Amino acid sequence: MTWLDLPADHPFGLHNLPYGVFSVADEGDDAVRRVGVRVGDHVLDLAACAEQAGMESAAVWRGGSLDAFLAEGRPAWAAARAWLTGHLSNEEYRDCVEAHLVPVGDVRMHLPFSVADYVDFYASEHHASNVGRIFRPDSEPLTPNWKHLPIGYHGRAGTVVVSGTDIVRPSGQRKPPTEPVPTFGPSLRLDIEAELGFVVGGATRLGERVALEDADEHLFGVVLLNDWSARDIQAWEYVPLGPFLGKSFATSISPWVVTTDALRAARVPLPGQDPEPLPYLRGSGDGAGTAYGLDVHVEVEWNGTVVSRPEFRDMYWSPAQMLAHLSVNGATVRPGDLFGSGTISGPHRGTRGCFLELSWSGQEPVTLDDGGTRTFLEDGDTVVLRATAPGADGTVVGFGECVGTVRPAR
Amino acid sequence: MTWLDLPADHPFGLHNLPYGVFSVADEGDDAVRRVGVRVGDHVLDLAACAEQAGMESAAVWRGGSLDAFLAEGRPAWAAARAWLTGHLSNEEYRDCVEAHLVPVGDVRMHLPFSVADYVDFYASEHHASNVGRIFRPDSEPLTPNWKHLPIGYHGRAGTVVVSGTDIVRPSGQRKPPTEPVPTFGPSLRLDIEAELGFVVGGATRLGERVALEDADEHLFGVVLLNDWSARDIQAWEYVPLGPFLGKSFATSISPWVVTTDALRAARVPLPGQDPEPLPYLRGSGDGAGTAYGLDVHVEVEWNGTVVSRPEFRDMYWSPAQMLAHLSVNGATVRPGDLFGSGTISGPHRGTRGCFLELSWSGQEPVTLDDGGTRTFLEDGDTVVLRATAPGADGTVVGFGECVGTVRPAR
Repeated sequence: MTWLDLPADHPFGLHNLPYGVFSVADEGDDAVRRVGVRVGDHVLDLAACAEQAGMESAAVWRGGSLDAFLAEGRPAWAAARAWLTGHLSNEEYRDCVEAHLVPVGDVRMHLPFSVADYVDFYASEHHASNVGRIFRPDSEPLTPNWKHLPIGYHGRAGTVVVSGTDIVRPSGQRKPPTEPVPTFGPSLRLDIEAELGFVVGGATRLGERVALEDADEHLFGVVLLNDWSARDIQAWEYVPLGPFLGKSFATSISPWVVTTDALRAARVPLPGQDPEPLPYLRGSGDGAGTAYGLDVHVEVEWNGTVVSRPEFRDMYWSPAQMLAHLSVNGATVRPGDLFGSGTISGPHRGTRGCFLELSWSGQEPVTLDDGGTRTFLEDGDTVVLRATAPGADGTVVGFGECVGTVRPAR
Repeated sequence: MTWLDLPADHPFGLHNLPYGVFSVADEGDDAVRRVGVRVGDHVLDLAACAEQAGMESAAVWRGGSLDAFLAEGRPAWAAARAWLTGHLSNEEYRDCVEAHLVPVGDVRMHLPFSVADYVDFYASEHHASNVGRIFRPDSEPLTPNWKHLPIGYHGRAGTVVVSGTDIVRPSGQRKPPTEPVPTFGPSLRLDIEAELGFVVGGATRLGERVALEDADEHLFGVVLLNDWSARDIQAWEYVPLGPFLGKSFATSISPWVVTTDALRAARVPLPGQDPEPLPYLRGSGDGAGTAYGLDVHVEVEWNGTVVSRPEFRDMYWSPAQMLAHLSVNGATVRPGDLFGSGTISGPHRGTRGCFLELSWSGQEPVTLDDGGTRTFLEDGDTVVLRATAPGADGTVVGFGECVGTVRPAR
């Protein structure tokens, strides 16, 4: 058995090959950051291996982030994947590869790229309907625009953090409906949102748009994303210009960027869109080819108890539709742009992707395996998101984990 | 007469000294970008001059942007201003300075810094009331939260462009109230928003906040900002998560960053806040010292006709309050963060800072000097924002211009 003899269901087999940025944990806080590829239970130091192998474009992985690689675009991504697959599966390159493998237990992971603009969508009909019922009980759950366009808003790129970063409970203004004026203090309704995040590469020029058919040229990869949310702060501030401080304190992403190439076997039709969207959201064909969903199974663990299993295939809008929409006004797309899907929720309680929905705004507590109950997050609570998707030839593609622990307000 | 013998009312005298990034126009598109300081009708090549003068920290201005200088923070900004003032007013350094001056007519200006996160506020009571009356005629003009917190939202950092960049008319979904479903096409209600933009320097760590009293440590400077807005796209998309594509296609800023140091003589009390805001927006003193307004006179020119003269002193919330608010939840502040004030509008028609208000949603056309009338922007229209403020000792501080011309939709 060698490091390459991985069981077929290993989430980080040769069909996956996600990219990340690591340092050697022993080397401390100032250790050099390196671009790595996860292979089984090891991380390949990509620049070092590629340079030793004499790969021409190895320099793109120097610099301790995926930024330069993201900028290169689809042809470079395809070439790198072919090169990697070849070198990892051919005995001839074994020495060169093995010289640059680090056990995954010995590394510390970092934010894999510089987040350019961060947009968060709202693409689950179940989530949007539930939130509508909770936040606006006297109105229709879905706003009139919801089925015509993927609703989104810009979030704070500077507070996107890598999995494992502690989350300090935010303070801010809250005004319960029963009080005449707002008060200031730590959020009392701290929540998660289980999402996928889409990592964009390549670039466009101001005034150009990314057509639906071209979205795959810019969709480099996918991460797990936890859009931490302070529901009390959000509820008071969000009319009329949308969420701001209720979201901007932190957004966690998983360290491994799973490529869209690794997710080709996970493509599934969308659940169905009625009314038919406008042509720029339909593509030039019948829509099935470009506006596809992804069969990603997500798991939400709260202090060791799995409390929800959202299915990404239930999402109403596709990732390609979201990218086509966000650039249809000519907004520039830059390498490192990140967009979240919005909370992934399904039709049943056990598939709801945030605690606002899961506890129905605090009215239906969640029981954990240790016997404790929860509505919103308490200090010291840890949330882990995990996901898998079907890979090529019956394999499994793993996303790893997106973890965060809540620390008391300062 | 030398280049230094500037009339006392010159908007770029020694009391101003704004920073920008220029290249020599003759050298073409790929010319080297240099950090410059505007002095009279010249631009000083700052790194070259400082290096020749043996200034220790001159390297911070190498690199063709203000990024490194912004990161250094207030002590470095103060030292640079003192050094500049000394070298520009002392005959001893004349040769060294003159060797690095370029006539302003010979330069091309660029985006002065990499925009980290861009936030847009909504800090004019007159503007928010007018927009409320127009967009939500059946509700109170101001939402219940408006006087408790400076409402803001994140915009798209990647589409902040320097003055002079053409603005391509955006396309998107519009649904007039009279139509049953949305249609797709070029915006028919393209508008401007005349604002000031605040350029942030220094940095905080995740979970820390910038107290009101410390805001000046992070407020490096001020630019003119035109938050181009497609009102029809915005009106259809903005409920419930706020403006998105109606704003994200372009935001123009003036090329010269006027330092907050140059604006000390322009500080004025706020118009008054009732109800009294929560303590974190009041500061530790009586509020007058830290939550001050700025006496900046803005001018909006439409195809050569000045159509409005908004006064920044009419703003309800102060820049320091906006910064304290945006970080009170522990959101990181990074060098290069930019926040807009929101449209500057006063109580009278001639002080309204956007065409939505000026034409009262298209019902009251504006007559230009050439006899033409306008409600919203037509292709080929040019808008120029200009501003001045009182400087030290009776001088005038100029902001220069923020210009944009509308090009047809693609």
